[in-house]
Amino acid sequence: MSTADVRPLAIAITTGEPAGVGPELTAAALTQASERWPSAHFTVLGDRDLLTSRAGGAWPETVDIEHHALAVPAEPGTLNAANGRYVLGLLDAAIDGAVSERFDAIVTAPLQKSTINDAGVPFTGHTEYLAERTNTPRVVMMLAGSSERPLRVALATTHLPLKDVSAALTIDGLVETLTIIDHDLRAHFGLPAPRILVTGLNPHAGENGYLGREEIDVITPALERARALGIDAPGPYPADTLFQPRYLKDADCVLAMFHDQGLPVLKYATFGEGINVTLGLPIIRTSVDHGTALDLAGTGRADPGSMIAAIDAAVIMARHKRSA
Amino acid sequence: MSTADVRPLAIAITTGEPAGVGPELTAAALTQASERWPSAHFTVLGDRDLLTSRAGGAWPETVDIEHHALAVPAEPGTLNAANGRYVLGLLDAAIDGAVSERFDAIVTAPLQKSTINDAGVPFTGHTEYLAERTNTPRVVMMLAGSSERPLRVALATTHLPLKDVSAALTIDGLVETLTIIDHDLRAHFGLPAPRILVTGLNPHAGENGYLGREEIDVITPALERARALGIDAPGPYPADTLFQPRYLKDADCVLAMFHDQGLPVLKYATFGEGINVTLGLPIIRTSVDHGTALDLAGTGRADPGSMIAAIDAAVIMARHKRSA
Ligand SMILES: [Zn+2]
Ligand SMILES: [Zn+2]
Repeated sequence: MSTADVRPLAIAITTGEPAGVGPELTAAALTQASERWPSAHFTVLGDRDLLTSRAGGAWPETVDIEHHALAVPAEPGTLNAANGRYVLGLLDAAIDGAVSERFDAIVTAPLQKSTINDAGVPFTGHTEYLAERTNTPRVVMMLAGSSERPLRVALATTHLPLKDVSAALTIDGLVETLTIIDHDLRAHFGLPAPRILVTGLNPHAGENGYLGREEIDVITPALERARALGIDAPGPYPADTLFQPRYLKDADCVLAMFHDQGLPVLKYATFGEGINVTLGLPIIRTSVDHGTALDLAGTGRADPGSMIAAIDAAVIMARHKRSA
Repeated sequence: MSTADVRPLAIAITTGEPAGVGPELTAAALTQASERWPSAHFTVLGDRDLLTSRAGGAWPETVDIEHHALAVPAEPGTLNAANGRYVLGLLDAAIDGAVSERFDAIVTAPLQKSTINDAGVPFTGHTEYLAERTNTPRVVMMLAGSSERPLRVALATTHLPLKDVSAALTIDGLVETLTIIDHDLRAHFGLPAPRILVTGLNPHAGENGYLGREEIDVITPALERARALGIDAPGPYPADTLFQPRYLKDADCVLAMFHDQGLPVLKYATFGEGINVTLGLPIIRTSVDHGTALDLAGTGRADPGSMIAAIDAAVIMARHKRSA
């Protein structure tokens, strides 16, 4: 796309579970974000009455609502499967709009999987649904801090039992994962030469095979192939060495082998302002890194920090994609 | 022991691998620690010529050297198995002194396992050796930050391949581990009611069994038994939830299920000033949380932060033990 494109950046926000904090966090976050990003245009997908009432009557002026009607009124904190297809409808509309380039990026507020499943639609998560709906064979989950805390952690495996992690790691899979990270960091994050530090799987990265062989049999061969493709991916390093500020300062991203190896540091370091980015999709998608917080819904006390960070990231990524 | 005991606290320091940074870190750390702890008496175990020369001629005045002769001169950065039995001799003397109550605590500088193994003595690590020499059936590895960064992380399993972690977790083992942590935090850390937050094994602590069953089958039953013993051990919690500052502030210790779930956050948070404490021994033992740093040996550029923190912790723990 040429730099002559002067349309405002179009960002869609799905407000997710109507009984959760999504609607109020969206309103609170956009009150700030719409001022911070005058060159962006925000479209919020959800039920107009729900959104304005959860915003406490103070809906941000320049922000459009694309109205999707709730099936039944939503009570804060009380899940109702009757609204399952409503939640899914918001997501479908956002994905369709992004695929057709009506939207430059989408930001998703948290949803409750059970609301959708209980409505009779099998649903395992945002990320899996986005991959399926866009015919993407492999996506990569990456969590990131806000611009003041720029740590980024991508995962080689995500939501599976710990004892299945070893078998899920393959040379091909790791090379594909690194290729996706490298591509998206260049195309959507404006990093011309991304450096991806890679962890080992075992304690001390296996200590030359004494504490496990996956580093020797799988990870190192994958890194050699990735480097032959021009990807700057040193490792495998012991996770407890790599995740120290002095090593992280030279990295654009860490690729951790599994969920609890990478995310505790990320959550610790980002103080609730982390975001979740799905890499490898044909569209740009960011989200908060927390759940629906049903106990806080309707109280106005939920912290919009992660939602603000997710919106900021979507705008910045969309801008990089346009200027690429 | 009564509070009438006015002997100075006797702290022994083993200087570890003579080709590594142990000797110079000990000298640098004690220059500070001997002023900070006038009520403690420090005895450094090692070769007198080695120690004074690595200290750059500035050996701290009030600190005794218990001379153990090197077998052959040690060159910085060059391992020599001829000194393997020297390294082990320092450790034996410190353990014997602590068991006989000549020393109130021992602090160990890093050693190189291969130096000892290549001398023909099977040796898998400080912690295992201490357990064996003191006939202790189970010890617990705990890493901790300095007093300004008081995070403490204990491990349910330590140095084994990731795929073997699940099978290594048992109800009995976890109950014993929690009992040791609870006891030692009371007896050596002056915490009258320690609170130990416990992680799950799987992502999201297994998500009610969807992502693994160890939480249901092993961890939760263990926590119920521990609580029945009066141990304050809530959990299991998802590791990436638990390791956030807002949850950690209510914890005296985190019990993580495995090495790379707990240590990356600890290392990130403590900026190279973490220490390693072996819980469950009849003696008090602390150590640095880093290795021999052969490349820095003899340069005077190695950071003594972790060694200072290990000495501080040994003094504080020994004082609590005496006043208990
Ligand atoms: Zn280790
Ligand atoms: Zn997760």
